[in-house]
Parts: sequence; C-alpha cells; structure tokens
Amino acid sequence: MILADLLVTDVREAATLARGAVPRTGAAMRELSLVHDAAIAVAAGRVAWVGPARQAHRQVRLRSAGRRVSAEDGVVVPGFTDAHTHALFAGDRAFELPFKLAGMSYAEIARRGGGLYATVRATRAASDTTLLRETGARLRRMAASGSTAIEVKSGYALDVPGELRLLRLIPRLAREIGVPLVPTYLGAHAVPEEYRGRPDAYLDRMIGHALPAVAREGLARFCDVFCEPGFFTVRQSERLLRSALALGLGVKVHADEFVLSGGARLAARLGAVSADHLLRASADDRHRLAAAGVTAVLLPLTAFAASPRRRSPGREMVDAGVPVALGTDCSPNTWVESMPLVLAHAVHGGRMTPAEALTAATVNSAHAVGLAGRGRLLPGAPADFLVFPLGSADELGYRFDATPSAIYRQGIRVSLS
Amino acid sequence: MILADLLVTDVREAATLARGAVPRTGAAMRELSLVHDAAIAVAAGRVAWVGPARQAHRQVRLRSAGRRVSAEDGVVVPGFTDAHTHALFAGDRAFELPFKLAGMSYAEIARRGGGLYATVRATRAASDTTLLRETGARLRRMAASGSTAIEVKSGYALDVPGELRLLRLIPRLAREIGVPLVPTYLGAHAVPEEYRGRPDAYLDRMIGHALPAVAREGLARFCDVFCEPGFFTVRQSERLLRSALALGLGVKVHADEFVLSGGARLAARLGAVSADHLLRASADDRHRLAAAGVTAVLLPLTAFAASPRRRSPGREMVDAGVPVALGTDCSPNTWVESMPLVLAHAVHGGRMTPAEALTAATVNSAHAVGLAGRGRLLPGAPADFLVFPLGSADELGYRFDATPSAIYRQGIRVSLS
Repeated sequence: MILADLLVTDVREAATLARGAVPRTGAAMRELSLVHDAAIAVAAGRVAWVGPARQAHRQVRLRSAGRRVSAEDGVVVPGFTDAHTHALFAGDRAFELPFKLAGMSYAEIARRGGGLYATVRATRAASDTTLLRETGARLRRMAASGSTAIEVKSGYALDVPGELRLLRLIPRLAREIGVPLVPTYLGAHAVPEEYRGRPDAYLDRMIGHALPAVAREGLARFCDVFCEPGFFTVRQSERLLRSALALGLGVKVHADEFVLSGGARLAARLGAVSADHLLRASADDRHRLAAAGVTAVLLPLTAFAASPRRRSPGREMVDAGVPVALGTDCSPNTWVESMPLVLAHAVHGGRMTPAEALTAATVNSAHAVGLAGRGRLLPGAPADFLVFPLGSADELGYRFDATPSAIYRQGIRVSLS
Repeated sequence: MILADLLVTDVREAATLARGAVPRTGAAMRELSLVHDAAIAVAAGRVAWVGPARQAHRQVRLRSAGRRVSAEDGVVVPGFTDAHTHALFAGDRAFELPFKLAGMSYAEIARRGGGLYATVRATRAASDTTLLRETGARLRRMAASGSTAIEVKSGYALDVPGELRLLRLIPRLAREIGVPLVPTYLGAHAVPEEYRGRPDAYLDRMIGHALPAVAREGLARFCDVFCEPGFFTVRQSERLLRSALALGLGVKVHADEFVLSGGARLAARLGAVSADHLLRASADDRHRLAAAGVTAVLLPLTAFAASPRRRSPGREMVDAGVPVALGTDCSPNTWVESMPLVLAHAVHGGRMTPAEALTAATVNSAHAVGLAGRGRLLPGAPADFLVFPLGSADELGYRFDATPSAIYRQGIRVSLS
C-alpha cells in the first residue's frame, strides 16, 4: 500500500510516458503510455503511483493530513522542459523588427543600433535588480504556460566578468521562480565588439579565464557555442568545447541554423548532449546525430520568424531516428514564452505528430538539459505535472494556444498568475 | 470639465488610433496616435477622455464614487475584435491531424471519418447545453486573451433548422460571456451530405427558407459563403449573396483560399464588407478590393497550418491600399483563440509591421464586422481596452505570446480567469 500526501482524481487521461529508454527515438516518440480514467498519487513531492482510478483504493492510502483534488476531467501530462532559452537579457528589440521585415541586412540593422550587440550593450548596462526583474517576469510567464524546468543560457555579456555575473544570477532566479533552471555558458554567442577581428584572442579568454571559473564555481552545466560563419568556425568551436569537456561540462552546439556549416557533425563527433536549430542540417547529419545519440533541440518559432520558406525539421529528424527535443529559444530576437505554442509549431510547421511533440517537450527535453528522470509520470520522478482542460493529450500540438488549468510542482499546486 | 467614473493612471503609452477615417489603409495603418504617460477617463461605460496624465487634473474630475486605478506602467490598447471565427461547434478533430500531416487527401480523411462533415455530424448531434458549454469555454478564453468583440459564424449544421438553432444560441452566449458577438449566417459553408451533387437545390433551400428566417428574426448581421471549387461557384455565391443583400444583410466571402477562383472579384463587385482568407488572390484582386473599399480579413494561423509555403498576404494587401483586418478563424481545423498570437503571425509571417497589425486587429476588424466606433480610444466609444505589461505598443506582434494584465469592458475591469 502506498502512503500518499496527495491524490489527484478525475483524470480523463494521463500521458505518463512511462515505458522505454530515454531519450525516445522513432516510433517510441509516439508512445505516450496513456492511462484513461486515471488517478495520480504523490508522496514527498514525487510521483508515487499512476493508474486507473478504480484501482486507487487498493493501491493508495491517503495520509490523514493528505488532500484529494479533482482534475475536473482534464488531461494530465508531465511538465514541459524548455530545452533552449536565451531568457537572461535586458530590454527588447521591437524597434528593429520593421527593418527586418523590410528585408534590411543584418549589417544595416546593426548600423541602426540593432542586432545582438544592442542586447549585449543593454544587458551589460543593466543592474542586477533590472536583470532579475525583467528575466524573472519572463520566467514566471514561461512557468505559467507549463514549463517546469527551463534551460537558461548566458551570452549577452560576452566579456568574462559579465558572463560570470549572468550565470551567478541564475540560481537566484530559480529560487525566486520555484522552477529548476539549467545554466549554460554561452560566452561564444558571438565575438564581442572589443575583440572584432580577433576571435582566437577571445577564444583564449574564454578557455583561459571563463571556463575554469565556470567549472570551479559550478556556474553552468553545459558549454554552448554559436557555430556559424561570422561567429565561430568548426575548428574554433571544437577547441572551446573540448576544453569544456575536459573540465567536466556537457556540451551543446548552435548548429547549421543559417548555413550547413558542420555544427551537427561536430556535435556528433564530440558526443554533445544536443545540437540545436539544425534548419540546414543534411540527411547525412541526421544519420550522424542518430548514430551518436545526440538530441536535436528544435526551435520551431525561430524557424518560422527567421525565414519564410523554412520549417523546423521535426518530421525528418524523427524519421531518421534522432531523438528530438523542443525549446522556445526565447530571446529578444524571437520572443516566445509558451511551450504549448512551441508544440503547435512543431506539429503544424514541423509535421511532428502531437504525440511526438509531447514526448519531445517532456522526457526528451529533460534529457537534453541533463535532467534525467524528469518529464515522465514515473514513480520516484518529481511530481511536476500539468492539467489541461482538453479532450485528449493529442489536443496539445493540435490546438495553438492551450493553457494549463492547473500546474503541480513537487506535488504542490501553484498559482497561475 | 469631464465627470468620470474611472480614471486609469500610470499608462506608459496609450495607442488610441484616434485620428483619421475608418477603415484604415496604407500609411494610415501605421498611425497609432500614441499618447505617452497617459491617463484614460471613463464615464458611463464609455471613453470620456484620453490624454497626457499631467493634464488630467485640469480636464477630468472623478465622481465621489469614482475609482482611480493604476495601469502599473503598462501599455493600453483598444480591445481586439476577432473578425472571423467558426467558434460555434461541438467536439474536436485532433484524431485527423496525423492523417493531414502525412499528406493524406481530404477525400481519404473524410473516408476515415474526418473533415468538415465530421464536425457537422457532431454539432447536429450535440444538445444546446453541450454547444453552449463547449463554445462558451472557447469564447471565454478568447475574451481572456483580449478579444472584446467576436464574429461568430454558423455553418456546422447546414440544414435550415440546424443553422437557425446555432444562430439563436449566439445572443445567449454573448450575454453569458459579456462580449458582443456578431452573428454571421454561413449555411453555405459546404453543400450538406444529404444534398451531395445537388448544390443548387441546397441553394434554393437557403434562399427560400433560411435567409428569410434569418432576416425576419434578426439572427445574423452578415451572410457569408465558401466560394471555392467543390463548395460553391462564383455564380452560386453571387446568387446567395444578392438574396442576402436584398434582405438587408451585409455580405462576406470566403475567397481565394485554396485556388484563385474569383471570390475576391465577387466581393469587390458586390461591395461586400469583407473578403476573407485571400491566400491566392492576385495583384488585380488587390486593386479591385482597394478600389471597392472591401476589407481583407486575413487569417494568418490558417495559412500557416494549411500550407507550408504560404503566408497570409498582409504586406501585399497593405501596400495595395486594401484595408486589412484580422481573425483567429478558430475552428476544429485551426484551433486558435488568442488574438495576440494572430498579430504575431500577421507580423512574422505576413510581414505587416506591429503597428499595422494592431490597427488591423482593432479599428479595422471592428469595421469588418459592422461595429463602427469600436477599436479606438475615442471619446464616446465603448470603454473596452486592454493593459499589457509591455514597453511599447509595438511589442504586440513582436512578441508571440503577449497576454493582457488587465481587461476593461465598458469601463469595468473583468476577471482574467
């Protein structure tokens, strides 16, 4: 008999994603391990039991102080992990959007005070208080949309002390928001303006000063690099990531977003936990990622916003046996906070099925940020789950703007506002 | 001196859209008539004054029972009008989405129990209670996203008594939700299965029985028709719409969504209030719509979901001088409820500027559904407005999932849940 603190009843359908190895690939991405007319028992903040409601009385006993709550015939799914965000920045770049829409070049937008360096300047100039307030508001809205774990990259300071400052803010934000945040060091987001034309000198700074401090203080779990022409070459990216691996960090690659530049191949060669974006990745890249077990973190809203003719290659990646995960890519460039919207774009744009998108956004996204054990309703997993007022789990991805009616984190129902 | 019931203060920026003729076209669509550091006075449910906060004490006196509330440095915009929805239906069609994504033909999906007729069967079979509950929940979520007026089409019963039943539910829904709903008769959504191969016989039924009842009872403000191959020809559409015009109804056309079939030309010829969809409309069509003053109601999410290579032609329409309005097209086919998401797709997909999209979704959408006077913060207009926690009004459309922090309808702040 399981002794529970909480029993959630009246669950029309629970998508447990309980069966099988992690990360999911191929047909296993369509296996949601559904339990119909279900109940969910929680003990000490963790999932204790999920099963048919009619069996609950034989399996679960509620502690005397325990609570029984109704999911009101809703669908329960594991909380989403947002596997890729640049959410830690100051300001916005709304002013440059009309320039972009008019087809202005990146260089011309930069001349008018826009582009990535505009956010670098704003972020460097912002106080901790401002950064915590603006980023905190974003993360809170992400959490209210159903994200129960969020990867957060640095990358809008670039200089060593600035990047370390950003990373040190992340644990404070996690405590304030009440959601695990996975910090990634992305000093290699771009070559800073003060190192223009001297990328290798900046690389030396990152390898010699930033990475050792990051590793020493445990400031990041991953090191990421923007491996694209005009940013960092494959050779430079490899040098940085090998240094990170040597220090015990996991590695990720911003790969093949603008051109097919070899980022995915590099990720496969290094055994990166993920290769992200991948809009230009080739069939050969897909096979390499699949063979190396590298997760493709796809960012469908960025694909949509960036180039009219491109869709995030969800279908192709799943069919090639690559584990797919999802993220908002929330940044001043593509300001998206809602994972249900990301699922819808992965489906309607990327032609993943709703079941594949849900698997990607839960168990596979958790894997892609090193949070093994999350994203499934499995006994022992953190009791982070969402109730949606839907007819079935596959309405996620079908509907564009589904919003949870209840969110549980560590078995505690949190306020949605 | 204006005597006010409510004074909203601490408005960082109010987009009043006050100046100029309605509907807006061309450069006038980018003119938001912004007031910075503003205050808004409301009297008897209507906008009484909008101006710089520092002038409020000289212009406005608050009644003794009046209230002063802070917008907390937020941006205020007029409430959205969702100019095109099929929100009145039962059930969902999540099950057919994987078929669609796999490229299955419409006929094959229909053979498997999907397509429009599946929703017709579900809607016919549903009780009034079920329809009110399911549709009411949708409309409430739309309202919580910022829609303060919503067009609702019939069209999922098709047979005459069934369509009249649907239209009669709309005023009940409007009272329950507290938002004006504009009813449109869309018996010509498709030829019902019982009339297969006999479209003209069905047309006779609509013209002889449905339209007179709709006009007599005042059940709809507009008559709409699906003018596409396999649905209704231009000749059939014209016959129906001329009958509607003769009975005093306004007319709308589902035009040129799948093929360039002449729907936009028909709308221009008849002086329709709007032509909707228009994905295949030609440059010649745009000129005709502009010359006739027909509003293009664009539905960018439907464009996105339907065909990978198509974007809603917002940029082209604005540049051709066509007044553009926006809608969710909420239906079991494209289940979208949030107008802020529609604005973002109009911008990032349709290449409208954020200012153009905001104009489209407010003053022009109100015009497109016959609600003159709405969609502007103009003295005398209903005090339906939204507060967004944004830095400027043009962050709407820039951000994908902006949500209002407060919604006022007739000057009363409504609960967001």
